[in-house]
Amino acid sequence: MNQAARPKHLQHLREAMRQSGISACLVPSSDPHLSEYLPEHWQGRAWLSGFTGSAGTLLVGLDNSALFTDSRYWTQAEGELAGSGIALERLTGAAVPAYAAWLRAQGASGTLAVDGAVLGLGQTQALREALAAQGWQLRTDLDLVDTIWPERPALPAAPVYEHLPPHAATPRAAKLAELRTTLRERGATHHLISTLDDLAWLLNLRGADVEHNPVFLAHLLVDAERATLFVGENKIDTALAHALAADCVQLRPYAEAQAALRALPADGVMLIDPKRVTLGLREAVADGVRVIEALNPTVLSKSRKTPAEAGFVREAMERDGAAMAAFYAWFESALGRKQITELTVDERLTAERARQPGFVTTSFATIAGFNANGAQPHYRALPESHAVISTPTGVATNGLLLIDSGGQYLGGTTDITRVWPIGQINAAHQRDFTLVLKCLIALSRTRFPRGTLSPMLDAIARAPLWAEQLDYGHGTGHGVGYFLNVHEGPQSISKAIPVPDMAMQPGMITSIEPALYREGLWGIRLENLVLNVEVEDNREGYGPFLDFETLTLCPIDTRCIDLALLRDDERAWLNAYHAEALRRIGPHLRDGDALTRSWLQTRTQAI
Amino acid sequence: MNQAARPKHLQHLREAMRQSGISACLVPSSDPHLSEYLPEHWQGRAWLSGFTGSAGTLLVGLDNSALFTDSRYWTQAEGELAGSGIALERLTGAAVPAYAAWLRAQGASGTLAVDGAVLGLGQTQALREALAAQGWQLRTDLDLVDTIWPERPALPAAPVYEHLPPHAATPRAAKLAELRTTLRERGATHHLISTLDDLAWLLNLRGADVEHNPVFLAHLLVDAERATLFVGENKIDTALAHALAADCVQLRPYAEAQAALRALPADGVMLIDPKRVTLGLREAVADGVRVIEALNPTVLSKSRKTPAEAGFVREAMERDGAAMAAFYAWFESALGRKQITELTVDERLTAERARQPGFVTTSFATIAGFNANGAQPHYRALPESHAVISTPTGVATNGLLLIDSGGQYLGGTTDITRVWPIGQINAAHQRDFTLVLKCLIALSRTRFPRGTLSPMLDAIARAPLWAEQLDYGHGTGHGVGYFLNVHEGPQSISKAIPVPDMAMQPGMITSIEPALYREGLWGIRLENLVLNVEVEDNREGYGPFLDFETLTLCPIDTRCIDLALLRDDERAWLNAYHAEALRRIGPHLRDGDALTRSWLQTRTQAI
Repeated sequence: MNQAARPKHLQHLREAMRQSGISACLVPSSDPHLSEYLPEHWQGRAWLSGFTGSAGTLLVGLDNSALFTDSRYWTQAEGELAGSGIALERLTGAAVPAYAAWLRAQGASGTLAVDGAVLGLGQTQALREALAAQGWQLRTDLDLVDTIWPERPALPAAPVYEHLPPHAATPRAAKLAELRTTLRERGATHHLISTLDDLAWLLNLRGADVEHNPVFLAHLLVDAERATLFVGENKIDTALAHALAADCVQLRPYAEAQAALRALPADGVMLIDPKRVTLGLREAVADGVRVIEALNPTVLSKSRKTPAEAGFVREAMERDGAAMAAFYAWFESALGRKQITELTVDERLTAERARQPGFVTTSFATIAGFNANGAQPHYRALPESHAVISTPTGVATNGLLLIDSGGQYLGGTTDITRVWPIGQINAAHQRDFTLVLKCLIALSRTRFPRGTLSPMLDAIARAPLWAEQLDYGHGTGHGVGYFLNVHEGPQSISKAIPVPDMAMQPGMITSIEPALYREGLWGIRLENLVLNVEVEDNREGYGPFLDFETLTLCPIDTRCIDLALLRDDERAWLNAYHAEALRRIGPHLRDGDALTRSWLQTRTQAI
Repeated sequence: MNQAARPKHLQHLREAMRQSGISACLVPSSDPHLSEYLPEHWQGRAWLSGFTGSAGTLLVGLDNSALFTDSRYWTQAEGELAGSGIALERLTGAAVPAYAAWLRAQGASGTLAVDGAVLGLGQTQALREALAAQGWQLRTDLDLVDTIWPERPALPAAPVYEHLPPHAATPRAAKLAELRTTLRERGATHHLISTLDDLAWLLNLRGADVEHNPVFLAHLLVDAERATLFVGENKIDTALAHALAADCVQLRPYAEAQAALRALPADGVMLIDPKRVTLGLREAVADGVRVIEALNPTVLSKSRKTPAEAGFVREAMERDGAAMAAFYAWFESALGRKQITELTVDERLTAERARQPGFVTTSFATIAGFNANGAQPHYRALPESHAVISTPTGVATNGLLLIDSGGQYLGGTTDITRVWPIGQINAAHQRDFTLVLKCLIALSRTRFPRGTLSPMLDAIARAPLWAEQLDYGHGTGHGVGYFLNVHEGPQSISKAIPVPDMAMQPGMITSIEPALYREGLWGIRLENLVLNVEVEDNREGYGPFLDFETLTLCPIDTRCIDLALLRDDERAWLNAYHAEALRRIGPHLRDGDALTRSWLQTRTQAI
């Protein structure tokens, strides 16, 4: 980020706004696929504002400008916006009303420009209504940022490759056939998929256009016989193109999706998901085509891992646990004897994962936060700013180290958080750690009716913290992909308002990650992934019920526990968990790695 | 119910339908106030169908007819509809789509008539859309049932009386002033209240037009200076009319509400609650008046009992507990020595309540269900059909007796369910009872952040049953009024989709009533009322938090408990509860009633 150029960028944008008669411009953190993580090409908000967080919206008026973001990013935004003249607007509730209020303060009327190519269809309605209520207009046909961004990064061009059997356990043709059955049932002749994980899953293809997420930029148009993949030229080689053609998947250039939508037959019926398609693509759909708005059918199919996939995930978890064990064994042996920083943790841990068969990349940027840094849920250590944990002559200071990390394997995606004691820890550390552990255990053991709306489980995880007047500000759990995005839907164990799509179904993988953050002191988060497994014996007739099978395998450091706070049944759960971790990680340790084997035995001892 | 006349009623309705060009007629369980319990005047659905349950909708086509009701009423409906030719449609999900599907089966197009005077404004939109989607029209300007119901019962005419201090702890003028402040903040000049508990609460008035609910039929129109009460003539005496006039509340006949709405000034702004006002009244609002749709402000105000009110509720609970104790002491002494039936229970228990100072009436029809009858959540013993519990020579049979009952006191409304052992009970009875008790304890002890959406707490109560693959089909808890309706909102601890209005706030009173029903065998439900109390010491800074203060005071029969299933902390909760029940009920027992005093001591002994 060239901070010095920032005022010039804003000035150029305002000139472009004046020329088009625009009073304010909204630059979201978004792309044509409504992705969570964006290729640089769509990081115009960061380029203009200097704020690099993954969620935030810039509003530029003719005289003022403001960056709207939620509490996770306030500290970061304060730093990055300093001196820019861009005000930080701290979001605590719904965003659209906050934008509307800010615009109203700029003027009693005006025209707001947003690039419809990156604006979600579902958001458009709320935005338009909020603006109309105060006399403002919405224009969505201008990409003003593009006109003033000469050095805008090109689109990523990483090659696309096939996710092959045995890990891709269901053939593409079978997935397409299932989707077409659903479309027929809904009365749809066509379906547009823009979300990258949905189309990667459907076609058993993977890419590397977005960091950590093995996806590639494309749109997919499916009809009763064919599917057309709009994808960058040269990203798919001839062999793969032939394989796709065999399943009636044809290729067209990435930029031609809108033209194809304009050419749809007028008697067509198009199913699109307003939360997963942009306004720009919706408006390209030919006149006469009837549109059915509904959840992408692939969202639910993708979330329900098959038994074969679940088997590969279990294996990936064993390997991931072995990598974690090897890292921690080294870490503990080096603690107080070598220089270790938060950055070293990331390097060493990623290197251990990279030694595992099937490893492809990290599933997100490792969070290694020592003491106060651990209290920032989205902390990222940087070369210019990070904590030292250990020096060659001792630990840097006593406390807790939080490490949240994960890997992309051909047979699954991992995401795990653990907290480790550094030097001498005290009773306050142990109390906090034990309370968070009680939360993890409480939800991990919960059995619940199939179809329970996932947000309804959130309170079960929080209750042990609530009892002590404590809480955490983020959700308890997110869905996780299968060698795909580490965040996927539709389920969400959180305070989100539940919708029927969020119902718990067999095969879903979800994180459980209760936490406690002591600002300026330390942070604790314990995270396992769990699989929804149907209880086979519906003996009472009130079922079917689901259990959580804990997938993640890695010791939870018992030195951090205040045993007086654990009930007998909680202690029994932890001991059984450690026994299984020992049994299943052990076979994946490297031959002759006595250090790790000894570490694993010590850290899984019953309490 | 004259079952023999039923075919004639349906025939008359169909003649009226044909004359008006109507293809189907919907007769809801509803009145102009959208009440849960209806005066007979609006029980046209029961008159036509013979089905007397409190929830159910009749759809009459020219050839077929069907009664739609949920699982609580299926058994009852099967019996009452037998021989009527009216099909029972078992509702398991949303009602409107089920109506639409049934109509579609009657014909590809048609006109459905519903009396707009008893149709909720909020429901109208959903109904109109569902019909339009299949080519049906909606007409809401006909009350066809009225035209064919010569012997229709008159409107109830019970006198209205004042709810006086000290029990009415906040003066009417203060409540009206607070409401007007809210209306001004929302930009409204007028507000229409149709829901009977809202206007009774606001005006500190009570009545007896609806069984068990101390309310009276009226609408209330509030503006910046005055309030106009549309109420049956002669229901308010001169003294009360003067008192109301002193607070600028004027009286007009009940039937003139629509005329007053038509005469509103065209520059008015009217706040109405689409869930609490009918279509008929909405359509009467004068052209030009802008309508703001929002929750009635009184719903939230009414739900938050003041500290003074909470004090009176605690006292009412002590007296209610004393009545329960006196009843059970007699019951146990008479068991196996006297004739006791489910009907005797109701009579004796109500008589004990009636001896308590401040008692006005029962808060709902007592449910006394022995063994299999207890497995029906809405069971009602009838003179022609009820179980015998005890005879002069022994208990009729072994098992469990469920009693759900409550009273209206000037200082609060009670609602309590207990289950008692009759004769010898077995391990299966005890296991079920103990599991339900664990659910009651789990939620009763939960501390949670102020503002938590009440449905999010539901899973905490169910988890102990879920662990054993068990569940119950109804909600866990409903709001309870203050000498008002035993069911009131906005909070609901249930699987309901949460909306912001359902947030938990200090002062709310809610039931906790987990249950387990073994069809054909026995039913268990344990119900206490709890008060939301703010935790005063927000010591960690994550608050504010709320605790549930258990209000209901009555022993939970420890003979029904399987001690091996209770954890130590659960046992401690129960012992503390019993100690408090003994301490607070004791002083309210009648002098010289040694039987009850001894019973209370025995049943509150620590385990």
